[in-house]
Amino acid sequence: MTISRQYFAFCAALAFGLGVLAIAPTRAETVARVVSPDRRLAVELDLSGEGRLTYRVLRDDSPLIGDSRLGFILRNDRQILRGLRLRESFLSTFDETWEQPWGERRFVRNHYNQLRASFVETDRDKRRIDVTFRVFDDGVGFRYEFPKQDALDEVQIAEELTEFAVARPATAWWIPAYEWNREEYLYRRTPLAEVGTAQTPLTLRTDDGTHVTLHEAALVDYAGMNLMKADGGALRASLTPGSPAKVVRRLPFATPWRTIQIADRAGGLVESNLILNLNEPNALGDVSWFQPAKYVGVWWSLHLDKESWATGPKHGATTANTKRYIDFAAKYGFRGVLVEGWNVGWDGDWFANGWNFDFRKPTADYDLEGLAAYAKSKSVHLIGHHETACAVSHYERQMDEAFAMFARLGIDAVKTGYVCDAGQIERQDAEGQPIVREWHEGQFMSNHHLRVVQAAAKHRIAINAHEPIKDTGLRRTYPNWISREGARGQEFNAWGNPPNPPDHEPTMIFTRMLAGPMDYTPGVLSLQGRGQPIQSTLARQLALYVVLYSPIHMAADLPEHYEEHLDAFQFIRDVPTDWQDTRGVNGEVGRYATIARKDRRSEDWYLGAVTDETARELSVPLDFLSPGKTYIAQIYRDGDNADYKGDRFSFVRETREVTREDTLTLRLAPGGGQAIRFAAKR
Amino acid sequence: MTISRQYFAFCAALAFGLGVLAIAPTRAETVARVVSPDRRLAVELDLSGEGRLTYRVLRDDSPLIGDSRLGFILRNDRQILRGLRLRESFLSTFDETWEQPWGERRFVRNHYNQLRASFVETDRDKRRIDVTFRVFDDGVGFRYEFPKQDALDEVQIAEELTEFAVARPATAWWIPAYEWNREEYLYRRTPLAEVGTAQTPLTLRTDDGTHVTLHEAALVDYAGMNLMKADGGALRASLTPGSPAKVVRRLPFATPWRTIQIADRAGGLVESNLILNLNEPNALGDVSWFQPAKYVGVWWSLHLDKESWATGPKHGATTANTKRYIDFAAKYGFRGVLVEGWNVGWDGDWFANGWNFDFRKPTADYDLEGLAAYAKSKSVHLIGHHETACAVSHYERQMDEAFAMFARLGIDAVKTGYVCDAGQIERQDAEGQPIVREWHEGQFMSNHHLRVVQAAAKHRIAINAHEPIKDTGLRRTYPNWISREGARGQEFNAWGNPPNPPDHEPTMIFTRMLAGPMDYTPGVLSLQGRGQPIQSTLARQLALYVVLYSPIHMAADLPEHYEEHLDAFQFIRDVPTDWQDTRGVNGEVGRYATIARKDRRSEDWYLGAVTDETARELSVPLDFLSPGKTYIAQIYRDGDNADYKGDRFSFVRETREVTREDTLTLRLAPGGGQAIRFAAKR
Repeated sequence: MTISRQYFAFCAALAFGLGVLAIAPTRAETVARVVSPDRRLAVELDLSGEGRLTYRVLRDDSPLIGDSRLGFILRNDRQILRGLRLRESFLSTFDETWEQPWGERRFVRNHYNQLRASFVETDRDKRRIDVTFRVFDDGVGFRYEFPKQDALDEVQIAEELTEFAVARPATAWWIPAYEWNREEYLYRRTPLAEVGTAQTPLTLRTDDGTHVTLHEAALVDYAGMNLMKADGGALRASLTPGSPAKVVRRLPFATPWRTIQIADRAGGLVESNLILNLNEPNALGDVSWFQPAKYVGVWWSLHLDKESWATGPKHGATTANTKRYIDFAAKYGFRGVLVEGWNVGWDGDWFANGWNFDFRKPTADYDLEGLAAYAKSKSVHLIGHHETACAVSHYERQMDEAFAMFARLGIDAVKTGYVCDAGQIERQDAEGQPIVREWHEGQFMSNHHLRVVQAAAKHRIAINAHEPIKDTGLRRTYPNWISREGARGQEFNAWGNPPNPPDHEPTMIFTRMLAGPMDYTPGVLSLQGRGQPIQSTLARQLALYVVLYSPIHMAADLPEHYEEHLDAFQFIRDVPTDWQDTRGVNGEVGRYATIARKDRRSEDWYLGAVTDETARELSVPLDFLSPGKTYIAQIYRDGDNADYKGDRFSFVRETREVTREDTLTLRLAPGGGQAIRFAAKR
Repeated sequence: MTISRQYFAFCAALAFGLGVLAIAPTRAETVARVVSPDRRLAVELDLSGEGRLTYRVLRDDSPLIGDSRLGFILRNDRQILRGLRLRESFLSTFDETWEQPWGERRFVRNHYNQLRASFVETDRDKRRIDVTFRVFDDGVGFRYEFPKQDALDEVQIAEELTEFAVARPATAWWIPAYEWNREEYLYRRTPLAEVGTAQTPLTLRTDDGTHVTLHEAALVDYAGMNLMKADGGALRASLTPGSPAKVVRRLPFATPWRTIQIADRAGGLVESNLILNLNEPNALGDVSWFQPAKYVGVWWSLHLDKESWATGPKHGATTANTKRYIDFAAKYGFRGVLVEGWNVGWDGDWFANGWNFDFRKPTADYDLEGLAAYAKSKSVHLIGHHETACAVSHYERQMDEAFAMFARLGIDAVKTGYVCDAGQIERQDAEGQPIVREWHEGQFMSNHHLRVVQAAAKHRIAINAHEPIKDTGLRRTYPNWISREGARGQEFNAWGNPPNPPDHEPTMIFTRMLAGPMDYTPGVLSLQGRGQPIQSTLARQLALYVVLYSPIHMAADLPEHYEEHLDAFQFIRDVPTDWQDTRGVNGEVGRYATIARKDRRSEDWYLGAVTDETARELSVPLDFLSPGKTYIAQIYRDGDNADYKGDRFSFVRETREVTREDTLTLRLAPGGGQAIRFAAKR
């Protein structure tokens, strides 16, 4: 819903009132300029003597992104790189506040100045390309637009040449691209100069303390962007491979937005709405049929190898076992029950034989119809599961029927999965032949995921994609794409090799989580994987529900484990998954983070804090609380002896009465955390 | 010609005599091992528990290349990466000395121990892949072999996963890959950790002083290998793009050899024959119709913009101007005269319209037939020129006719050219449609260049390719592929922006030049580009003829300039371009280098030395000279005041009588050099 909206368009000549200028190119000259609403950020476009286009980003008049190339290598035509001249440019400003159906905050302000510059080649073909820059107070988004034109019907993009020439020494947090394990890596912390080929979001802290995150928004019908080192040390786009080219598009079209989020403090990145703002508004209309909620299910037991996806004596998805989870969910107020391994196809080497999955057929020992009815009788909803093992075309042929069946049974959310090595997505033609292998982050998958989300929406089903394409804020346009994995989650704590170290979540909060929600599956209060301990205190498992945003969160542990920790479990029962507002209270990338969120359905606030392997004392002014209100702070904190390497279970639950005038001191154990519910007194 | 040859093959069980072992894989185990003839190098192959194959290279029992992955991502089938088991392995040794028709040395010893290991997948497809390692005293070469098999007719390779996990901190010298300007870059010197996506050869010096060059040999029907940073900091293959996949091959086939040249001192790299040894023997038979030689021509004047390729008042390739060069060549003993701009197609924007070139039609002001006859009358040979501007299919349609015409006119060498930005090679189908853009280093061009070289060989024409695919030693198999550019040459000194700095050649000697000959076009004694001075002393221009190997070398300067410097010019007239032997006397990558070579047609030796911007005194024992012989050392050295930033022309020519018992002290000015002819006394 649009709350307020102002839209002004000026031609360049009239635009001086917005702090922008546009001049004709002659030789290595600045041809256009646009500044942010608060005038701290400026983007300048240059054309070199030979007509090469570059941009730079200045912050407080000092280059943050130095001269960075723009352009394309095409497979089916000459590159678009040189011999460009400015045809015309337009400046405009935009200021709107819109409402999320659910999210980290209810109202989002979308306020930017826009430069749209049209370029034309000086040679005989006179090909045209436009670039649009949107400059927000919290960063920059830009994209290319290929207008309809005679000399070019279709582009086959071999490479996008977009550069990000970070102009200051910096530390970078990043995960490698094109590796076998998709996005599921521990973040590396290196000097900017040592960044390898990396996925986005990639977060930098310049030596003078500015935080910058490079990513993209609205990845639709295009290949995901990775970053590689270009000549001179700039980071350059490296689009994910695809067939017959990385991207094939008919004109006209626009690329995804390339984004540069900028903040003085790490917490500022958490508060940025830039990615969502660069996505199109809700295309699905009423989505009130989905409710943010928590869930339990047959999952952790599988990763512990106590139960199996495959049928047989260890099969987890049996009727009896699922009833046990439904009963548990009903007893403790969880809306959802996920069951993995419910369908035919898991027996044998499913990893290599995804086409054996049947998304319509439960296993013989799983009474799907009966369980759905049983769940309904207890006001619980089964959550569907569609693991494809990357037999994606096979899945597309069955998915509509599968969604229809789920919808009929009251199953309104499905967890999908694409487990296979990178570059091993199976794409078939309409006849099912031949197989071409695609990448999780390629153009084919950018379209596949939207096909799934749109097909599911028709049946009022929400999608939580695992081993997905990266999040680029498309949940704004397709709100039923509620969450995804796409990172190294709790399951690695089950497997070990190694479990997630304590700095993993304080890194993810300022990297991966800037892309969007993650289904991390927190709350394993038993703190134990297959043998090896989880590198976390008990209180930290609770904090994860606040610091990691997702409109669905699992209580991932086994029911019997929760019943051993009913005191801590209370926080998991209480914590909502939908928020009125979110604050990045404090934090340093990879070290610690405190996040406060206001419940969307009450006056309560929640706070989560996590630290790396270092114990910390964090002073937190409660000035985010509402004026004039008193709160009972229900504090779940590390015990005095807590330590992720020692007494992981040392844990204190205590209450205090507080107001916004108070300052709390959070004491976090090594590898610890803290969770607080600020219950507003009525 | 094979001088001596021994070939032994053993099955693994019998191979203990060679210091090798082969055991059955169980879990993360070494399954095969092979050592170098001198036993300093060892290669071990491991299979992990899940059947992933890795290799490592030990030197003196210490890892130099740590565990490095092997495998492929295919476009048309599952990746070849996991689930492998060892089927069988074979060990053998090989020791042969062969003769080059021309080269850096006449006789080349090819001595290695070989491990050939066959792997098979444990799953239902039972796909097979073999790897062969050849371990020399001076390094390692390995390649994959795809044997004929039922489950796989053709592979479409999306990526080769070969890694080089250099196990020690190191300094790297490299140029970026996938940049617009192909190979024509100044080398960057960075810590190994800061290497971006790089071309090969890439040279490393580990902190403990070992020199390592990563490259490839025998790049045939495959995409050129670049190196990118993989997870954990290893360098990983990044094959050059192509359509419809990076590589498309029918089985059976073998990949190019991946090479790791290893030396204690930088000069050792210069003496390595590993790249040539990993290529197939001469496939052309008698090639005595080509003679290594020097040439002059219409070239530097074009880059100075004193003359033009295009017709009109500035046209360089006129009949009268060419006669002037023929006369100059005849007078001073140069065999060849290159003329660029001789054919139709240069007028207008040739860069974007390569299909306008006609390789059979001289311009109206260029009497090709008459000039060929005139040259012949003076015992001079015109050198042909075929600039394609990347209209490669267009060129292929004309080249046979063009070569036939040249052959008829006594033109027995052609300089080809592929000037266009990276990724802009025009490939058409047989009907001339549609155009797909390919890369200079891709599979298509690896085949194109061989088509050109083979077509030229039929007409007894030698090829000197500019803006070529990189050299991987194919001159052994196709000796008429005499030289190429593929680096930042003298032309950059004409253009400036910037000219080549003094550390460029001392870097190239230990990087690019390890790949093979380069047509650098040295000898610009006027030391002046378009305005800006060349960053070189006079003596250094002479030294380039020795330190940079090529069987053809240009005397690149204008005739009138040589007549102003007849004393220095004498060295250019004397220096041969074919050698009996070559020694890397001393050097440090990027700092200085001294190389000594023995003339193949006399008892004379030649020495060249170059330095970076630092003046040096190098003590050179003359122990490379023949015992019992006395030589007149004709020394061309920097004058006492010489400096590339000051008196570039300060120059001394002096003679001394020396024997191999003597030690010379070379004094090199900043940016200077020294050239010496050791004329054997008769």
